[in-house]
Amino acid sequence: MDRTRIREMITALTRHDYAGMYMNDFLETWHKTDDEVAATFKVADILRAMRESGLSPRIFDSGLGISLFRDNSTRTRFSFASACNMLGLAVQDLDEGKSQIAHGETVRETATMVSFMAETVGIRDDMFIGKGNSYMREVAAALEESHRDGILPRRPTIVDLQCDIDHPTQCMADMLHIINHYGGVDKLKGKKVAMTWAYSPSYGKPLSVPQGVIGLMTRFGMDVTLAHPEGYDVMPEVEAIATENAQAAGCAYKRTNSMREAFEDADIVYPKSWAPFAAMQERSRLYENNDRSGVDALEKDLLAQNARFKDWECTEELMRGTRKGQALYMHCLPADITGVSCGQGEVAASVFDRYRVPLYRQASYKPYIIAAMILLARKADPADTLVRLLEEGRPRVR
Amino acid sequence: MDRTRIREMITALTRHDYAGMYMNDFLETWHKTDDEVAATFKVADILRAMRESGLSPRIFDSGLGISLFRDNSTRTRFSFASACNMLGLAVQDLDEGKSQIAHGETVRETATMVSFMAETVGIRDDMFIGKGNSYMREVAAALEESHRDGILPRRPTIVDLQCDIDHPTQCMADMLHIINHYGGVDKLKGKKVAMTWAYSPSYGKPLSVPQGVIGLMTRFGMDVTLAHPEGYDVMPEVEAIATENAQAAGCAYKRTNSMREAFEDADIVYPKSWAPFAAMQERSRLYENNDRSGVDALEKDLLAQNARFKDWECTEELMRGTRKGQALYMHCLPADITGVSCGQGEVAASVFDRYRVPLYRQASYKPYIIAAMILLARKADPADTLVRLLEEGRPRVR
Amino acid sequence: MDRTRIREMITALTRHDYAGMYMNDFLETWHKTDDEVAATFKVADILRAMRESGLSPRIFDSGLGISLFRDNSTRTRFSFASACNMLGLAVQDLDEGKSQIAHGETVRETATMVSFMAETVGIRDDMFIGKGNSYMREVAAALEESHRDGILPRRPTIVDLQCDIDHPTQCMADMLHIINHYGGVDKLKGKKVAMTWAYSPSYGKPLSVPQGVIGLMTRFGMDVTLAHPEGYDVMPEVEAIATENAQAAGCAYKRTNSMREAFEDADIVYPKSWAPFAAMQERSRLYENNDRSGVDALEKDLLAQNARFKDWECTEELMRGTRKGQALYMHCLPADITGVSCGQGEVAASVFDRYRVPLYRQASYKPYIIAAMILLARKADPADTLVRLLEEGRPRVR
Repeated sequence: MDRTRIREMITALTRHDYAGMYMNDFLETWHKTDDEVAATFKVADILRAMRESGLSPRIFDSGLGISLFRDNSTRTRFSFASACNMLGLAVQDLDEGKSQIAHGETVRETATMVSFMAETVGIRDDMFIGKGNSYMREVAAALEESHRDGILPRRPTIVDLQCDIDHPTQCMADMLHIINHYGGVDKLKGKKVAMTWAYSPSYGKPLSVPQGVIGLMTRFGMDVTLAHPEGYDVMPEVEAIATENAQAAGCAYKRTNSMREAFEDADIVYPKSWAPFAAMQERSRLYENNDRSGVDALEKDLLAQNARFKDWECTEELMRGTRKGQALYMHCLPADITGVSCGQGEVAASVFDRYRVPLYRQASYKPYIIAAMILLARKADPADTLVRLLEEGRPRVR
Repeated sequence: MDRTRIREMITALTRHDYAGMYMNDFLETWHKTDDEVAATFKVADILRAMRESGLSPRIFDSGLGISLFRDNSTRTRFSFASACNMLGLAVQDLDEGKSQIAHGETVRETATMVSFMAETVGIRDDMFIGKGNSYMREVAAALEESHRDGILPRRPTIVDLQCDIDHPTQCMADMLHIINHYGGVDKLKGKKVAMTWAYSPSYGKPLSVPQGVIGLMTRFGMDVTLAHPEGYDVMPEVEAIATENAQAAGCAYKRTNSMREAFEDADIVYPKSWAPFAAMQERSRLYENNDRSGVDALEKDLLAQNARFKDWECTEELMRGTRKGQALYMHCLPADITGVSCGQGEVAASVFDRYRVPLYRQASYKPYIIAAMILLARKADPADTLVRLLEEGRPRVR
Repeated sequence: MDRTRIREMITALTRHDYAGMYMNDFLETWHKTDDEVAATFKVADILRAMRESGLSPRIFDSGLGISLFRDNSTRTRFSFASACNMLGLAVQDLDEGKSQIAHGETVRETATMVSFMAETVGIRDDMFIGKGNSYMREVAAALEESHRDGILPRRPTIVDLQCDIDHPTQCMADMLHIINHYGGVDKLKGKKVAMTWAYSPSYGKPLSVPQGVIGLMTRFGMDVTLAHPEGYDVMPEVEAIATENAQAAGCAYKRTNSMREAFEDADIVYPKSWAPFAAMQERSRLYENNDRSGVDALEKDLLAQNARFKDWECTEELMRGTRKGQALYMHCLPADITGVSCGQGEVAASVFDRYRVPLYRQASYKPYIIAAMILLARKADPADTLVRLLEEGRPRVR
């Protein structure tokens, strides 16, 4: 891409008000203004354009990006590492196994102790309802306090790499994929999105993706339908946000118990398994009480309950019912693919295969989205910084 | 901080003779001259001033900092990583689990094999009396030999990140905290330091902190008292050093079995649990003989012995007996806080809470101390290097 | 080394045709042309000369080097990390334990997901016959496809860090050691190499080193003899390559069942244990069928079989039979040293000790060989790049 075009993108960025992002965190998307969300997309696109044009978007000569993963991860781990690396930060894992955290340290203390040189702390904590997001806020408060006390010269930015409520880096990447797929935010008005549950032989997948999707995609004038079998509700607070968003944007948010109905004329389908909210609450309670046999019984129940909905699969036949039979199929990956990664799963192998390239492109936005979140939080003058980087024109590879 | 002030700090640095630190290690503080110790403090302060003024103190364009942790660690791990990152080194963990070290490799060979691109090797090995420090010296000898043989173009610098004898990065950070707290080394004459044992429900904590403290703080004209219950002696060799130091500095080193006595009129208190030296020797012997039941029996004995000294707690009442009731409370963290991290521990919750900010500040010096140790060992002309960095004025964040 | 000399080395490099290496992988050496192999040696020597002269050979301002180790490793892990660091890449481990790979992801997907910012992917997968190399090719195909599909802006380069067939980074480092030991490729004609089996009390060591050695060293006009007890055959396909190489180079490749015969008048000896090819095939089959008792039985058999050849040890007496009693002793390390790392092993302690310096020097080439492989694959104009680096003269340490 030529530099004139990148320069125009930066000019477009300056039309947004993103001052509130400076030295702030990125947790739920619905706590960011429309301008802030739009600025994040624009910075992500600019960073990508720069990097793919061979320019280095490195803004840090040194500094740490701390990652704390309380659940397994490949994609998000590498996306965070890629974002940090692109901007010049070294990733240091806070491994609760290796460290002394388990030995009774308070969150406040540990958060401060690891952050003397940190610019950002990326956290994944998605396993227990009512825990992950609270933990991130606890860390944020600790960092805020230590900064106020003069201990931390700079207050690191927390990036929510998936919690029990939202998965902002995923859903922002998903949304940017949609925007670029259709050629701009202005092309989305009236598009129909089906965020639907799908069957998976595994159990207990987080609710953060469906919640994140309905909480974000309702802000762009698209009609969003959440479909799931009875009993697979998501958090009511997030549904309330989706409803509010839709009203403000002049579009619809609705819920159905029919996958077919959701797919009908959909422009975009996002079929994905998740656990019922009530069951996840119950599971958190059982774990808290250290009730292992209760957890096992619940798991058995949930698997049996899941098994009643094996027909919630994204098949060729269902895809034919979408807009011109050509809806954009989305997934956060890895998907449970029928006959490939499991006997029966979320999606038919032929559907998945046909959409492999757009699926991988969807995933490719995440490093840039995370980098944009970091840059907007760490620089008081992001647009000027980007112009400076562009003008200096330092090559990424010499 | 303005650059004129930093320039003055560098000028003050040049008055010390630190030539002996070049291409050398940093193990026990008592093997460093007064000038070398002072230079380390000054470089740490300069690096901090530069970084907090937005200047990058990066001296390496590439190079590795190798970390080898034979015991859990959060703070020291992140301090080492921060120091390396600040100077431009990438940290590579030597994980004895993942590697083939367990398979009969000699220390000499492994040390050389991992060091072709290394500038520094940070080692924590504090679990067994008579082992950790020896291991570091074995690694040092191996690196020396491989350098002499022309295998290693540069001989990496070992930084003792805690051994069985000393914990130099901790105690140097502690000392720099004291110096800056009181406004300079010249303000310390006659101050009274109480390094005291304290009760902890856990067992077998290393002796390296109390030993490091009495071995270092006796060099600054402060009266240092080591207090512990009978049977909790530290290594006699280190006490001999403390006594010698005190004589040379015209101050007192003494020992008592009363916490109260040590606290009396103290300016600085450092109450912290440790295991008795003789018991640690015994434990090392038992482990060597693979005598698991002996280890278990010893642990039980030690816990029972500890339990007899539950009144060795840093309470508000004891604090009132210190100088104006306002001694500086110190701890290497994490502390066993009564009613917070354990039922009964080293310090009352209200005391700990009141000192949280200075405690965190104390910890904040460690990355800079480690970076100073590395810089003084890797550059033949540290002061000129710092002047050059200051004049170039490369921003850490662009 | 002065810059004029380095400039001459770069000029010598330009005489080779290495265009085919650009954006390609480095797997088996025999799939590289003589020019490509020679260019790799020359770039390795140039990078070393630059670094040892204090110049930074860093070509990347950012970018990831991904490492995937499916077997333990110290040397190769650090060599890869060193090579990446030298060139400016941050290493990110793909840890199959921490990630979701185990959960049914396809290789194609994972390979793409981790590679958005990757310049190179180093893989060690040497445990099972017929698996490791195939896996690398599967990853390569996935990356190729994702690049063709426009998902990956650059296709990362795979470096084979040891597979079931070859160990190219080891054998190329070994070969460069030989070249520099004798003062140039032109000095090697007629030299005699003995790649021989040796006894080890451990079992199931990969065949990749002996195979890599006979597949590479037969290309330089040296007579190569492979010696092993009956039943310890290597892969016939690799022997066929060795034979072909030797014919093309006008030298001999032969096999013997006598260690003594192989050592006779040898200039270079490389005694090292490995498992019999047929047994490794059998073991792979047993693991595939999850036949644990079969694996245990096979292990027992193999250890018993090994034990019949305890006299295959590189002793002083055998060394005396080599050219002037002074053959260059080589090993990929760690060696099983009799009376040091095991009761009886591959080499007598006195022999090993005498050759420690050349052994360590042999190992020291690996980081540079890997860096050369990466540079030749990532830059369309490696020689110009090196000239530019030389002219800019950026110091590695400021």
